[in-house]
Amino acid sequence: MAVVEVSITPLGVQTPGVSEYVAGCLKVVRESGLKHQLTPMGTIIEGNIDEIFKVLREMHESPFTKGAKRVSTLIKIDDRRDRPEHTMAGKVRSVEEKL
Amino acid sequence: MAVVEVSITPLGVQTPGVSEYVAGCLKVVRESGLKHQLTPMGTIIEGNIDEIFKVLREMHESPFTKGAKRVSTLIKIDDRRDRPEHTMAGKVRSVEEKL
Amino acid sequence: MAVVEVSITPLGVQTPGVSEYVAGCLKVVRESGLKHQLTPMGTIIEGNIDEIFKVLREMHESPFTKGAKRVSTLIKIDDRRDRPEHTMAGKVRSVEEKL
Amino acid sequence: MAVVEVSITPLGVQTPGVSEYVAGCLKVVRESGLKHQLTPMGTIIEGNIDEIFKVLREMHESPFTKGAKRVSTLIKIDDRRDRPEHTMAGKVRSVEEKL
Repeated sequence: MAVVEVSITPLGVQTPGVSEYVAGCLKVVRESGLKHQLTPMGTIIEGNIDEIFKVLREMHESPFTKGAKRVSTLIKIDDRRDRPEHTMAGKVRSVEEKL
Repeated sequence: MAVVEVSITPLGVQTPGVSEYVAGCLKVVRESGLKHQLTPMGTIIEGNIDEIFKVLREMHESPFTKGAKRVSTLIKIDDRRDRPEHTMAGKVRSVEEKL
Repeated sequence: MAVVEVSITPLGVQTPGVSEYVAGCLKVVRESGLKHQLTPMGTIIEGNIDEIFKVLREMHESPFTKGAKRVSTLIKIDDRRDRPEHTMAGKVRSVEEKL
Repeated sequence: MAVVEVSITPLGVQTPGVSEYVAGCLKVVRESGLKHQLTPMGTIIEGNIDEIFKVLREMHESPFTKGAKRVSTLIKIDDRRDRPEHTMAGKVRSVEEKL
């Protein structure tokens, strides 16, 4: 099980706002059925690493279909295989318990 | 106003779990009084960019004080100055409105 | 054509040094035949975005085959489609010309 | 001693090319006197972590002085304190020895 954060930015679009492009990427995740969470800095996805790679490839393509000519995509993967469960909720809980 | 995500990882600690170190970094943010949010992949901070830089420097130091010998810190800054308000809540709202 | 940087870190290994794992990932890129460059902070790959995604998936798997239980992988994609050529050498040249 | 990679991107500029802004950031590093290296995906800096933080803050400001209204800055810090020397050259050498 992997928890992955992705943030996608189109370059060369004339306005500083890019939320329309972010919404397009988010639709791709929604249609995948994978568990996910929108944050102020990206989208976090949880699930099988191979399924996630497939969705990441599609998300990266999304802004080009809306006219972007250059896309900058940042992906951070946290893949843990020494325990049966590695989830978004579990990661947050684990930190909060130490506070 | 900037929105900044930071994720701090100690290397060379014997267990794959690092939540204790993450909790230490989070305490630094809490004491700063800056608005923040814990996510499954990092901590997001909102505020004046100079104040945030000061807190980032302190957060990066935190795992060393707990015994880490090597620390990997990832920082992503989104600094927008063409509108009076640029906040964590506003960024999420802006994407959700387009869905 | 895309230019992609990847940096892969095993967690829960007992020594702070991780160069053996990095070397394993680099071997995967070499065998792919894709143009690449080792830097002090990661590996940069140039080529077709679909081929690169395939290699990234393999690189991410490499440390697990060497015993790592948790792997943190950071990927930054710069994909530009408004010009015939978008290369590692071209990107550096473009900046140096402005200096 | 820390080795730090930084990559700075202005948003809301009308052309997909941003090398002029990158050159501006590079000038800031040059004037700092810190050892650095330009790569196809960013700038890598080596030195004292406090000095580097000061330079990072200045680099992040640079695109705003050239008219950018939104700046996205990515910083990756590798700070190692269990050995006297932790350098850009040493990191690359360490990987190449394992190949």
